[in-house]
This record gives sequence, C-alpha cells and structure tokens, in this order.
Amino acid sequence: MSSPTPAANTGASPSTPSVALIGVGAMGAALGEVLVKHGVPVRTDLSERSPASQSRARAAGLVPVDTAGLLDADIILSVIPPSLALDTAARMAALWQARRGDAGTAPLYVDCNAISPETALQVGALIQDAGLGYVDASIIGAPPRAGRPAPRLYASGPLAGRFSVLSRHGLDIRAMQAPLGTASTLKMCYAGITKGLAALAASSIMAADREGIADELAAELAASQPSLYQGFLSAIPSMLPKAYRWVGEMEEIAAFLGEDRPESGMYQHMARFYAAIAAAQAGYEPTTFDHFLQSGGDKG
Amino acid sequence: MSSPTPAANTGASPSTPSVALIGVGAMGAALGEVLVKHGVPVRTDLSERSPASQSRARAAGLVPVDTAGLLDADIILSVIPPSLALDTAARMAALWQARRGDAGTAPLYVDCNAISPETALQVGALIQDAGLGYVDASIIGAPPRAGRPAPRLYASGPLAGRFSVLSRHGLDIRAMQAPLGTASTLKMCYAGITKGLAALAASSIMAADREGIADELAAELAASQPSLYQGFLSAIPSMLPKAYRWVGEMEEIAAFLGEDRPESGMYQHMARFYAAIAAAQAGYEPTTFDHFLQSGGDKG
Repeated sequence: MSSPTPAANTGASPSTPSVALIGVGAMGAALGEVLVKHGVPVRTDLSERSPASQSRARAAGLVPVDTAGLLDADIILSVIPPSLALDTAARMAALWQARRGDAGTAPLYVDCNAISPETALQVGALIQDAGLGYVDASIIGAPPRAGRPAPRLYASGPLAGRFSVLSRHGLDIRAMQAPLGTASTLKMCYAGITKGLAALAASSIMAADREGIADELAAELAASQPSLYQGFLSAIPSMLPKAYRWVGEMEEIAAFLGEDRPESGMYQHMARFYAAIAAAQAGYEPTTFDHFLQSGGDKG
Repeated sequence: MSSPTPAANTGASPSTPSVALIGVGAMGAALGEVLVKHGVPVRTDLSERSPASQSRARAAGLVPVDTAGLLDADIILSVIPPSLALDTAARMAALWQARRGDAGTAPLYVDCNAISPETALQVGALIQDAGLGYVDASIIGAPPRAGRPAPRLYASGPLAGRFSVLSRHGLDIRAMQAPLGTASTLKMCYAGITKGLAALAASSIMAADREGIADELAAELAASQPSLYQGFLSAIPSMLPKAYRWVGEMEEIAAFLGEDRPESGMYQHMARFYAAIAAAQAGYEPTTFDHFLQSGGDKG
C-alpha cells in the first residue's frame, strides 16, 4: 500500500482515476475516505441517503453529485446491501443507455457486494449490455481503520486489472486472474463461515439464556474455546445492527450452494434467523445476549 | 484431579464404587481407562461390539460381563451415539425390572450422551420408573489423553452428587446444582457452536473446491482468521469418521431449539449434510477436503 503524500492531497494527477461511490454505509464511506486521502476525487449521490450516510460522506470528503453524475467518473464502486445490487446495476445501466455515451469514455462498474456468483453474472450482463465495463469484486475484512489490516478487495473478470490501479491509492486489491464470478464465490465461502458462525453463536446464546445457563455456557467457552469466545464478545454486538443486511447475504449464500443441497437449507434458515433478530421479534431481542456478554466480561 | 497410586491399582477400597460402562467408543473407552487407572473396577458388555471396540476395551483394562452383569455395578455410565440413548435406557430398565431388584442396591444410571433435555427427561422417566437412580450428564471436550485438558462431565439432577464421587477417581465432574436436563442443555448449546462450525467450514471448503478456489479460501482464512483456520485443519479430518454420529446430535439440537424456530431448521439441515458426508454421497467424499487441507499445510 502506498502512503498518502501532501502532493497527492492537492488534486488528481492526469493519471489518477476519478471514482464514483454508490453506497456510503460504514464500508463504502471508509473506502471512499481512503481514496480521497490518497488523492483520488470521489463523488457520490446523497439525494436519497439517510442523515447518517450524508454526514459520513461529508466527513469522508466525498463530493455530492446527482445520480447521472456518477457516470462521469472513471470507476464506479457499488458497495451496498446485497439485496439492492441487481436493481442498482439496472438503474445505472439504464442511465448510461439514455445518455447514449461513447464507449471510449464508459466508466468501469465494479460490483463489490456480497452476492452469489450467479447474481454477479446477472449484474454483469446488465452492465455490459449497456456498454459499461464490468468487474466482479468482493470485500473481505472490516472497514479500513488505523491499526488494523485493510480489507481485501478481490477482483475477477478480464477487466480486473483496470480496477487494480486503485491499489496505488490505498486500496488492497487482489486481482484473481479468474473469470467473472470468482471474487463473489470466494466471498460466499468466507462469509458462510464467519457470518454463519455468528448465527450459530447467537442461536446457542439465546437458547442458553432461555434456559438460565448463559453464565455456564460463557464459562465453558471461555475455558475451552477461548478464541471463539473472545470473538463472540465483539461479533455479537457488531452483528445486531447489521442483521437486516445479512438476511440478503445468507440468501445469496444459500442460492450459491444450490437449493437441492442440504447445506443450502442451513443458510436459508440463517436468513430467517437474522430476519427475526433484525425485527427484534419476541424472543429475538438484543437484550437476549446481555447476560452472556456481561458474564463474559467477568470471565474473559 | 487425584493421581493414581500403585495402591489404587491393586484393587478397589471398600468406598470405591464399581462402574459399568455402556459404550466403548473412543470417549467411553478412554473414560473407562482413566477410572481403571484410578483404582475403579470397570465392567462392560462386549457381546455385540465390533472387534475395534473389543480391543479398545481390553487395552483399557475393562472387565467383560454380560448385559445383566452391568446392573451389579454401583454406577452405570452410558456413553453411546445419541440415537441409541433411549433404546439403551429402555433395555436396561427392563432388565432391572425383570430382576425385581431391591431398591437399596439399585445402581445409579448416568446418561452422558449428547441428547436434548427433552430426550434426557424421557430417558430419566424410563430409568426412574424401573427403580434406578438417574443423573443427566453430558461430556464437553475430547477424550482424555496425556497432555490435554480432561473432558468436563457436567451433571444435573438431585442425584448428581452421587456421580461426583468419581471426581476422586480421575474424572472432571461438574455437578450443576440444577434440575434434570440442564447438563444436556449445556451440551446442546456448546455443540451447536463447535459441531455447527465444523459443518459451516465443511460446506464452504466443499463449495470452494467445486469452484477451484480452495487455495484462495485457505490463504484468506490463514491470513485473516488464523485461529479458525488452524482449528479447521484438525477439526475437518477428525469430523469425517464421526459424521454418522453427529447426524443424531444435530437432530437433538434441532429438537432442543424448537421446531417452530428458524435456528432449528439450520440444524435439521446440518443433520442431512452430515448424513451426506457419512454416506460419502457424490460430491460429499472425504477427498473434497484434500486440496484445502494440503494447501493449508503450506500456508499455515
């Protein structure tokens, strides 16, 4: 990773690509901020965004534009909940077709979302049919922040190299030399483990809490599975506000695995489990975890 | 834990209970061996056991008896696959009733199996109706072996203290001061995490292997989830020969969680997934893991 220099902050050099960011959640805004600090002008469309997203975008130094203005960038990054990936791509494709743009200036559309390879190919078909370049990417790791490893942006498809220029501007991009869909496949396999594990932990902690043995479960895990246990103490609280987004991600993993396989059913039910948590249905309230987490504080 | 002494090996003292072991799999035989080394006479019924079980039992120093002879011990430990727990208890209860035994000499029946609390209560009803004492226990941890922590034997129910006398003979028994079913509940919550995680890892590794990216998944996990990754390198190979037994355990966890809950469905499908692995169905062969595990060897 290159370090930002004062010169890089004063403006883009002729070879510096401009970037448009779709999605300014925690991950999108943090990636945008890294690019801005490395001299890349980053625009985003805030017209339909929440106040929280708007203030994240301003803090990150992103330039507000209208939706059509996103198409004037060299590279468009889509960093949104998986359930929105396809509709968003369709909208951008339609806007580009309406402009009847010259293919020579067509931006590169990089879908970074946690979608199945099949969905990634559908996104790619929409984007490519409209005359835009397409890269299938996926993000593994937490949003960039000082003191922890940068997230990896895996990229697949023949144009992955064009996306890789942003490695010179602070992003950790891993071009896979592999066909479209491969980056999404890796994300499905990885998230199937990490976000699946959060579901198993949440299910067991809730059950232990119902039966009055959250303390005993915490003590046994702390003693015999200390690294899992320490992971849960941070993974459970950080899962709660994201559960609504993980519903779609679990559905993508289930589709990726193939509906006729039993392992697909594990993830179909995880999607429903996360939906119950996101809705704080009776028995799925955030408070269900309090006893385990507090008990954990004493014993960890 | 007390250490074995030469005197303890020469025979049981008047206060040393005798033990009957039902089930001489890896866990049962190893627990039996610990007891024998700590001066406890342990008998088992080998009449219908495999040659592997028979040789394990002999190596552990267990005394062969017929099934009815098990009832002459002070404490009976059932350490068998969960799907056999109920039938086995029924058989022992019937044998005891046939003997019309004096309640004063009735042995204590300790079910140590990975069964739901509901199944544990059914086992308990059979056992208690026949006039035997009953303890609901569960085992957390790997079979005892030099150089690693002993497995914990959690015990619940009013007679748990009678089982605890075996803590003086090498076992790590944790009497929970809790009603029957509680030890099984703890096991369900714990195994739901650990054996569930093995299913998620196996599912993702198989999918990555199908798509030709087992190497990339191994490398990313080794870098960003090193303790999970190291765990998989031993958990996957050790899961394969036990998958048949985990089918029943996943079914018990699903029943425990409650069939109307989505998290129960996760475990119902895990049971089917482990059944496919146990049967080495097409696409579920042990070789599916080779690439990940070998790749792991290079990068761990």
